[in-house]
Amino acid sequence: MPSADHIRRVAERYGELLTAHDADGVASLYAEEAIVEDPAGNAPLVGKSEILAFYRGAIERARPERVAVTGPVRILADGMTAAVPLQSRSTRDGRLVAVDIIDVFTFDDGGLITSMRAYWGPENVNPA
Amino acid sequence: MPSADHIRRVAERYGELLTAHDADGVASLYAEEAIVEDPAGNAPLVGKSEILAFYRGAIERARPERVAVTGPVRILADGMTAAVPLQSRSTRDGRLVAVDIIDVFTFDDGGLITSMRAYWGPENVNPA
Repeated sequence: MPSADHIRRVAERYGELLTAHDADGVASLYAEEAIVEDPAGNAPLVGKSEILAFYRGAIERARPERVAVTGPVRILADGMTAAVPLQSRSTRDGRLVAVDIIDVFTFDDGGLITSMRAYWGPENVNPA
Repeated sequence: MPSADHIRRVAERYGELLTAHDADGVASLYAEEAIVEDPAGNAPLVGKSEILAFYRGAIERARPERVAVTGPVRILADGMTAAVPLQSRSTRDGRLVAVDIIDVFTFDDGGLITSMRAYWGPENVNPA
């Protein structure tokens, strides 16, 4: 199983790569057959090419200024699942907004992300 | 669907009732057939009497000093699911410890909790 340090590094890296507008970098954190639901409840994206297209679109639309981990990464005892509080700051319609998100990630033994579900909604989009 | 304000109030109340060692109060936030996984991945507790017994035991063991919401409650657009960052401070083996948790709750139309999954592990239990 991946170490807790590895999981925390992946969470930090996820934010850094989004901040750098590096969709390929973000996609490289995922396993080949990974699943993404963002927000949770949306139709799941399956596989790396759908996931890459999703992050390309999201970065293109939101042009995030800063995406960062905002609190302790919660890691289950099995070491394969983590819940990560994040904030994404970006400009929407010319206004700086902050979106508070909690992402739940699962990992494979190699430390790649096998799934991500993002918990956030309209209540979590606020002026920054 | 329950309002965002209701969901935030339930999250705050959940912490207050645990702080008050009021297991019956906590159980009263749940629907009759609710499911609890604490931590996530554990065998689910099903129904209010199992849930009440679980909280009685947890309060008896940990005697929490303070359980509180530590950041924005993330609420999905459907208004039926929320992810809540919490910290529980309690005494274990004579030492004050803080446990950082993220609870994912679902709700019914009446605003009762229908499920709770708690994300935390040994990495999240630290000296307070």
